[in-house]
Amino acid sequence: MRNDAGAPSLADVARAAGVSLATASRAINNAYGVSEATRQKVLAVVEQLDFVASPDAERLARGTTRRVALVVPHLERWFFGEMVAGIERELSAAGVDILLYRVHDLDDRREFFSRLPARRKVDAVIAIAFPVDVEERRRLELMGVAITAAGGQSADYPYVSIDDYAAGRQAVDHLLDLGHTRIGMLASYERTLPAPRDNLRSRAYFDALAERGIPADPALVKDMEWGARNASLATAELAAVDPRPTAIYAHSDELALGAWHALTLAGARVPDDVSVVAIDDSPLAETLGLTSVHQPVREQGTIAARMVLTALDRPAEGAPDSIVVPTRLVERGSTRSPIPTHR
Amino acid sequence: MRNDAGAPSLADVARAAGVSLATASRAINNAYGVSEATRQKVLAVVEQLDFVASPDAERLARGTTRRVALVVPHLERWFFGEMVAGIERELSAAGVDILLYRVHDLDDRREFFSRLPARRKVDAVIAIAFPVDVEERRRLELMGVAITAAGGQSADYPYVSIDDYAAGRQAVDHLLDLGHTRIGMLASYERTLPAPRDNLRSRAYFDALAERGIPADPALVKDMEWGARNASLATAELAAVDPRPTAIYAHSDELALGAWHALTLAGARVPDDVSVVAIDDSPLAETLGLTSVHQPVREQGTIAARMVLTALDRPAEGAPDSIVVPTRLVERGSTRSPIPTHR
Repeated sequence: MRNDAGAPSLADVARAAGVSLATASRAINNAYGVSEATRQKVLAVVEQLDFVASPDAERLARGTTRRVALVVPHLERWFFGEMVAGIERELSAAGVDILLYRVHDLDDRREFFSRLPARRKVDAVIAIAFPVDVEERRRLELMGVAITAAGGQSADYPYVSIDDYAAGRQAVDHLLDLGHTRIGMLASYERTLPAPRDNLRSRAYFDALAERGIPADPALVKDMEWGARNASLATAELAAVDPRPTAIYAHSDELALGAWHALTLAGARVPDDVSVVAIDDSPLAETLGLTSVHQPVREQGTIAARMVLTALDRPAEGAPDSIVVPTRLVERGSTRSPIPTHR
Repeated sequence: MRNDAGAPSLADVARAAGVSLATASRAINNAYGVSEATRQKVLAVVEQLDFVASPDAERLARGTTRRVALVVPHLERWFFGEMVAGIERELSAAGVDILLYRVHDLDDRREFFSRLPARRKVDAVIAIAFPVDVEERRRLELMGVAITAAGGQSADYPYVSIDDYAAGRQAVDHLLDLGHTRIGMLASYERTLPAPRDNLRSRAYFDALAERGIPADPALVKDMEWGARNASLATAELAAVDPRPTAIYAHSDELALGAWHALTLAGARVPDDVSVVAIDDSPLAETLGLTSVHQPVREQGTIAARMVLTALDRPAEGAPDSIVVPTRLVERGSTRSPIPTHR
């Protein structure tokens, strides 16, 4: 009744139950048009034959799942959504499904790394702007799960990312080239990422000032948890510093939005009173006319997906090389040379 | 060597291969610390016994996948990310995995509905603000896949949503109560949703004006594809209408952001020259100090996930009832009574 060398087929089930292929399929899939008696007969045969329906059977036989886990700390922010969109398009075209995991705090993280690899639900993990530590990576590797970082650099496994230091330099050097010397910085940190002091976008600011012999003024540096609202509050403080900064460098477009709003409320015009530059060049930058350093987020997603597909389909080639995608300054209306004050 | 009534266990495999349970597991999972000879021996037994590793085996035996498909037209917008976050948290706590599908255009859509149900990768589908037509729904049901709508109403299957008409009325009635009579509307449409003329948020505007005996001025109604940039361009046109509207009702916070920016560029102050009200009450509204109708997006995600879990775990209860969550106006600084002009 069944071939000992492989799993029973739907045809085996149909034959054993004495029904047509179509009826067997409908009974198994719980579809309409099958009597309860027939359904029970088919299901009994299914159980007896240890029949496994669905593509999972084939996948299990191959030892692969054709699924990739996306680990994302945030879903409600442009950067992450855009990255996931790029990854989804590429993987979906290759017939690979995405299991989505939001790993937002330490509990989520513990849960994810204790459960996922052991249960072998996926062939690979893509971590979006989310550093995986040595222990976690070892655990994944032990279970034969490949790992790739998207939108963040790692010394330990393949990644695709921008060069955050270079992006920061493009933004700050632009302000310095325009003649600004009092430049505020809105630096954001997250629980899941390095502190802003170790952050390459912050280091770019301090280095750029130092190279021009401009001392960094601690009153002009604001570290905050990510968010336009926090940037708005910090900018209100910057606007009250005397003398006021003539420019603001924000680590991301959303922070620049908060800054712009706070400046307007404080009666300061952008760019005549204060220039604003940021990093991301999201649709928000175009809306506001914000000068911003462009990073190709969807493209990073596409590249991360291709790296994973290479690792899955051609494992003999070894781990793929990491890729750094270039950034470039997009000048819009939010930056200009400082206007001399006559106070 | 194996029990005819069920699938072989890992213990069966270990016994047949003459190795320990741990070694069998490591060999199957391709982990370190197993010689190639041992691995080959174990894999041969696995093949002979038709052993299926991983949770998929258990799931297949039950006829369920414990996976839910999320169908999302957009990922890079706050509303969708927030909704997915709410769904993910609830399903993940119940041990249900999420397969993510971005269905962005007609090609994606055809692909999704032709492939997913037939391959039975999931037990249920949650469609986020994405209307599923009768044919597509039938196809899912035939394959025994339940469907729920999150953030959109449907006459045909269970949903969780706000009442878009009521939300629109809360926004427009607020402006009317303040004394505004020249109210512009920024109405957005999407390829995947009904046109704005049939849109409940638009109908609320026309009804509210009619009830107060105020004729709708076509010059004050702007229909556009969703996006802050488009709202900004449309608002520049509204600002040039004579007499200028004293208030703007935007279908979403992002549109209001574009409007606000265009008003500032046109030299109009919010709210002294033009009031702005929107729907969503996203973090953007708090940043801008925008008066907005609050909708609980994450809560809608949580409810949608619970509806799906009920359908999966207690199918005897029948399809869950649809749920409409309430909205409420959150007044901030962007609206006030019109200031009489002396021109």
